[in-house]
Amino acid sequence: MTAETVERAIAEVLVRRDVPAADADAAARGLVGANLRGVDTHGLACLPDYAKALDEKRLKAVPAMTVDRRLPWAATLDADNGLGPVAAMRAVDLALEAVGRVGIGAVAVRRSNHFGAAGVYAAMVAERGCVGIVTANASSVCAPFGAAAPMLGTNPLAVSVPAGRHPAFVLDMATSEGSRKKVRKALAEGKAIPAGWALGPDGRPTTDPQAALDGVMLPFGGVKGSGLTLLMDILSGVLTGAEFGGRVLSVMTNQERESGNGHFLMAFKVSAFMAEADFRARMDEEIARLKALPPAEGIEQVMYPGEREWKIAEERRRTGIPVPGPLVREVVALGGDSLKGAG
Amino acid sequence: MTAETVERAIAEVLVRRDVPAADADAAARGLVGANLRGVDTHGLACLPDYAKALDEKRLKAVPAMTVDRRLPWAATLDADNGLGPVAAMRAVDLALEAVGRVGIGAVAVRRSNHFGAAGVYAAMVAERGCVGIVTANASSVCAPFGAAAPMLGTNPLAVSVPAGRHPAFVLDMATSEGSRKKVRKALAEGKAIPAGWALGPDGRPTTDPQAALDGVMLPFGGVKGSGLTLLMDILSGVLTGAEFGGRVLSVMTNQERESGNGHFLMAFKVSAFMAEADFRARMDEEIARLKALPPAEGIEQVMYPGEREWKIAEERRRTGIPVPGPLVREVVALGGDSLKGAG
Repeated sequence: MTAETVERAIAEVLVRRDVPAADADAAARGLVGANLRGVDTHGLACLPDYAKALDEKRLKAVPAMTVDRRLPWAATLDADNGLGPVAAMRAVDLALEAVGRVGIGAVAVRRSNHFGAAGVYAAMVAERGCVGIVTANASSVCAPFGAAAPMLGTNPLAVSVPAGRHPAFVLDMATSEGSRKKVRKALAEGKAIPAGWALGPDGRPTTDPQAALDGVMLPFGGVKGSGLTLLMDILSGVLTGAEFGGRVLSVMTNQERESGNGHFLMAFKVSAFMAEADFRARMDEEIARLKALPPAEGIEQVMYPGEREWKIAEERRRTGIPVPGPLVREVVALGGDSLKGAG
Repeated sequence: MTAETVERAIAEVLVRRDVPAADADAAARGLVGANLRGVDTHGLACLPDYAKALDEKRLKAVPAMTVDRRLPWAATLDADNGLGPVAAMRAVDLALEAVGRVGIGAVAVRRSNHFGAAGVYAAMVAERGCVGIVTANASSVCAPFGAAAPMLGTNPLAVSVPAGRHPAFVLDMATSEGSRKKVRKALAEGKAIPAGWALGPDGRPTTDPQAALDGVMLPFGGVKGSGLTLLMDILSGVLTGAEFGGRVLSVMTNQERESGNGHFLMAFKVSAFMAEADFRARMDEEIARLKALPPAEGIEQVMYPGEREWKIAEERRRTGIPVPGPLVREVVALGGDSLKGAG
């Protein structure tokens, strides 16, 4: 299915729920950006949950998003409980607009929702010759290092850096180690989960998926990763005016109040520090040195963050985005007429 | 030994090697800052290596550091192969000066050297109501994820965030998992090293310390941590005009050419996004929620990054910095008269 077709279907579903056409298009580009990069869990697959939240008025179709430009480079965006990808696309625009004026821009977003894949927005920034940093907080599933109860979410961090002949460096990661989804899969398959993913209800490390589900998930990378996960909550939640410290809810599941997600986005021109062409050549050299390293056992070729996603995007722009039949039918049922007859 | 005494001794050793008094004082504050925070490996203990490098003219005592202010918020600093802590203190000043004018400052430092503990400089930034980000690259010891040969250093990352009644959040971490020093210790003690620290010379994961020494160390946190370690090299090396991609040398050991370390430092006012008092209150709330979590097994109290270091600094400001006798004698022999009669 072409990216354009999927984007059209997403926009149709959203517009049918009173989302203004421009917002629906922005959200569609944000979600399909994830599909193009191979992150299918954060693309079209999110649409049914978004549609449900709109239907149940837990998400505003026509939010009154307000921007406060506090400094030439700094702005806050109150997303008024609108769609997360709309808020994120707006934040990208605001940051790049500031970059155009002063070479750097940062936007603190509050009262937002799940925004898809952080790497999509970071990659947009790199396309403009900028380093991009995108963070978000999320509903509480992870225990900080040393704790036996959750306070942190999967809190994504994406950082992008433009290169020259090579695709941009785009690091896009959850700061949690595993995911509950994979723990449930392990339980269903009767398998153990990797060490370091979870604590059981007794606060002790466990590889038993049931104990993990009864307990808490852990941030990646031990005490260091835990510090970074907390930092994502600080930048995305404390600094933005969003919820933080375990109070963010999931728009996918909660019925109580608005989710309260926050995002933080920063972009700055590499030409603030050296000629852009020189920087791009140096990044190419960095990448070339990395790719020339001998691979470790079981690895075919050393790769860098964003390389695989770029290759998938190239491929999917040519051959289309694979969409499972049940998802096609679900989207059609929600009003995504453009997918009719497909899948 | 009081911080002032140790600072004086460091300055004496450096001035005796023709370092200008103001630079010697700045370096002394940088190094003793690490001792105060309990990071004794990155404080006074570095002085003998610095002195040796100065004696052998591998480090310039009187560098002609040059600043290029390319934008109101952005500057580059060519440290002319001078002392790393002097360059880092200069970068802090430059960044905070820009913060004073436009609310944000970033400084890209090239041709520098080992600078001590990144957290010291980040903490200085937080004291001014700013979020601080400090990165550096270092000599090559770590293999990027998927590789069997080194290209990355211990590449420190420090991020600081001011709070209110609580001490500032100061994350200060090497982005490598273990250290060769600890591997050598394990070898001497006939112990295995933890899984995830190293690959053997065959490119396979190992817990055998000898195989680790013959092989390569690994970044922390698997593929995610590896991406971050590479990012530190990009920000500190590629973007600054310093060496990168495995070409940084160690001023401690190399005799060949200048080390080529790079640093990247950014500071921005939290008041760019909300009233500073509101932010500090929200950070206190974040910290209070974290500290109220039930501890995991074997943990007395949940702590956050920077808390322990702050407590040590409080203690050491009152009772002094412990300095081992052999180090005292070494510093005295180098001309640190203020330590005479101590230790």
